[in-house]
Parts: sequence; C-alpha cells; structure tokens
Amino acid sequence: MVEDFSRLQQGIHYRFSQVKHLATALTHSSWANEQPEPVEDNERLEFLGDAVLELCVTEELFKRFKGAHEGQLTKIRSKLVKEKSLATIARELDINDFLKLGRGEEAQGGRNRSSLLADAMEAVIGAVFLDGGYAEAQKFIMRIFANKWPATFKIESSKDFKSKLQEVTQARFKERPTYVLTGTKGPEHEKIFMVNLNLPDGKSFDSEGSSLKKAEQTAAAKALDYLTEDEGLS
Amino acid sequence: MVEDFSRLQQGIHYRFSQVKHLATALTHSSWANEQPEPVEDNERLEFLGDAVLELCVTEELFKRFKGAHEGQLTKIRSKLVKEKSLATIARELDINDFLKLGRGEEAQGGRNRSSLLADAMEAVIGAVFLDGGYAEAQKFIMRIFANKWPATFKIESSKDFKSKLQEVTQARFKERPTYVLTGTKGPEHEKIFMVNLNLPDGKSFDSEGSSLKKAEQTAAAKALDYLTEDEGLS
Repeated sequence: MVEDFSRLQQGIHYRFSQVKHLATALTHSSWANEQPEPVEDNERLEFLGDAVLELCVTEELFKRFKGAHEGQLTKIRSKLVKEKSLATIARELDINDFLKLGRGEEAQGGRNRSSLLADAMEAVIGAVFLDGGYAEAQKFIMRIFANKWPATFKIESSKDFKSKLQEVTQARFKERPTYVLTGTKGPEHEKIFMVNLNLPDGKSFDSEGSSLKKAEQTAAAKALDYLTEDEGLS
Repeated sequence: MVEDFSRLQQGIHYRFSQVKHLATALTHSSWANEQPEPVEDNERLEFLGDAVLELCVTEELFKRFKGAHEGQLTKIRSKLVKEKSLATIARELDINDFLKLGRGEEAQGGRNRSSLLADAMEAVIGAVFLDGGYAEAQKFIMRIFANKWPATFKIESSKDFKSKLQEVTQARFKERPTYVLTGTKGPEHEKIFMVNLNLPDGKSFDSEGSSLKKAEQTAAAKALDYLTEDEGLS
C-alpha cells in the first residue's frame, strides 16, 4: 500500500526510487499497532536516521569551523539536532500532514507533539539514506538545514577552562570556584580521578578524567556551560 | 613533517592520499602541547570519527538484523563501539606503536591506556573518512570489525518489557516489581509521565514517557537490561 506522497516529495526536494521507505518513515507505531496485519513502523528508520543526521551535521561543522575544537563543535551540534530543532524542520516540510497515527495518539494531539515530529524527521532522513545512500542524504540534510547553521561559533580564547571559569566566577560572585578530589578508581595504569567543583552560588559539578588536571578542566567546562548557557552561539 | 607510516598503512589495509590526516590522527594532545609551534592534535578527528563509526555500525546492524527492533540494535551497537572494544582493535592494528605522546603521558603508561587508544582509533577512522569519503570509511570499518559482529541478537519475544520483567523477577526473587507514577510535567498536549520502578532487590529505575504505559515499558526495559546484563548478546 503506497499513498500519494508526490506533494511531500516535491516539498522535500527528494524523489524516492522506492517510495515504500518514505511510507514506513511516516508510519507511527500507534498506527501500526492498530492494523490487523503486521506493519512496519518508523522506529528502525529513526534509529538509522539519527546516525545519518549526526554524521552529516558533524562533517559539515568539521569543515565549516576549522578553528573550533571538539567541545565547541559538540555544543553547536547538539543545538542543531535537538528535538525542538528537528520538530521545527518537520513542520516546515509539512511532514505532520502525512503522518499515520493511531486513533488514541491522534486524539491526544500527537500530530503536533515535538518528540513525535522529531522522530519522524529522523525516520525520513533514514529513508532517504536507505533509498539514495550517503551522498543523497547529505544533500537532503544540507537543504533542510540550509538556514540553520550558526554564522560563527563562540570563541574560547583557549582550552583553559579553569582560568576562564575563574575570571567569570570572580566577575559574577567576587569569589573563586573550589575543586575537591573526591576519589580515584581503576587500576594504577588506568587510574581515573574524580573531582567535584563548587560554584559560589551552591551549584556543583562532578567530573572524571585520566589526570587531576583533566578532571578539573572538564568540571570547569561544565560550570562554564552552566554560567554562559543563555549567551547563545554567536 | 610526515613520518614513515607505510607499515601501519599496510596493517590497516588503507593507503592515504594525504598521509597528513593519518599523522594528525596519531598525534595526542600531550605531544602537541609540548611542541614550540602550534601542532594540530587528534581531537577534532576523533569527534568526526566517532560519528563516522556510529553511522557505519548502525547501517551494518540495520541491514544485518532485519528482525531486530531499535532497542536491540542500540544495545548491540553500544557493545561494539565501547571504549574497550575500540582499544582492542587499536592494539590489533598496532596503532599504539605509532602514537605520538608527550613525555608525561608516556611515563604514566598512556600508550597502553584504553581510553587513549579508543580515541586514537576513532581519530584514524575520521582520517580515513576525510581522506577517502564515506564509502572508503565503510570498507575500512567492515575490515576492522570483520570478526566482531555478533552472530545473532538476543531474541525478545515481543516488545512487551513489562511482561518479560515480571517473569524474570518472579523467577529470581519470587516477587513482582512495583511501579509508581512519581509525577507528570509539560503542557497538557505534550504531557510527560514519570515513573519509578522498584525491584525486590532494592534497585530502582526512573523513566519518562509520553504515556504511563510507555514510561512503564521504558523502566521495565532498563530493569531487564540490569538483570540480564551478563548474559551476553547471543
């Protein structure tokens, strides 16, 4: 059973060789569960699409931001692929109009639920990959993310999160953060150091690392993320 | 500055067009930090390689285990790509022999540390992808994982984790697990249900879902993972 998906395929600028992949991507488990015969839902395609999206976005960020280190790239990536962003793209492409939902899910407003739309968006990406391979999936993702890439990334003057955190904490609280080594674990040659960092506002961050310095840097990076959360990317 | 990596390239059965990518993949930050001039370390390539590996393994599992649902695939994938597995492959390929480490890292046994080797393995995968594209990276990963794929996946008779957990818990503890709805959050049309599951041994699992049933199923799946952790994949 293949529906008329021609409007959707025009909208997403991708024409499937095998439209059955698109049909599966649009089949929510709640609909599949209501059918008398077994029908495949979109959950396996979502699993595939999630990994396709992650690599395509990673590759683009890697090439676009040559001066960014991996911590900055991770942060940009997670904003781009988070549920809310994917649901927005799904709505822009009118994917919600084409979803097959079960009666209960429909009644509860599932057609406008961000988590459900984000999953369907990933499933459609998985379907494009299965249908056309990596190169086609990449072109598709570049189209749907065309206006989503940040213009710049937040510049960190260096990788020294401890020094940076001290500046920010002094400026905001007139006090320094404190670091405590809470323990170590693992065999001697693979020892892991555990650190707890406390900010003057009482907020606390745990981290681990293969050296005390690394564990402190990681904790400091987390605290910096927390303190600068609302400053945006660019 | 490009070293003689011909033995390594023979060992991994991949010849780089631009061997500088391989050199970067083998440069640990501890070595780069000791150089008088700025040198790129392998951390950005590790970030890229991690996503390449995830997609290649996901694609293979998707095609290999057509009857497996996404929860099973996720579980198999995490065993395949975990630190210990990647470090083993790095040692099989003699990547440790070619790593550039700083003096301190070398003295502390970094050359045999699993986390460091797993990171380098991901960086080498990232380097192959950058050098040869997705198809070459996929061939490379299929070679290095040739004898790693599980023959079968653990059969779950259905997706009904609650029933399965009840069986397992009754058999092991002669008691049932208990489920408590601990709260709900979010607006009415996107309400999230929070559930706490208790096992008779006192172990407790929290989960969330867009329905009470889904939250309970997710909690049950976590508890099953915990109870069957050491039974292996096949």
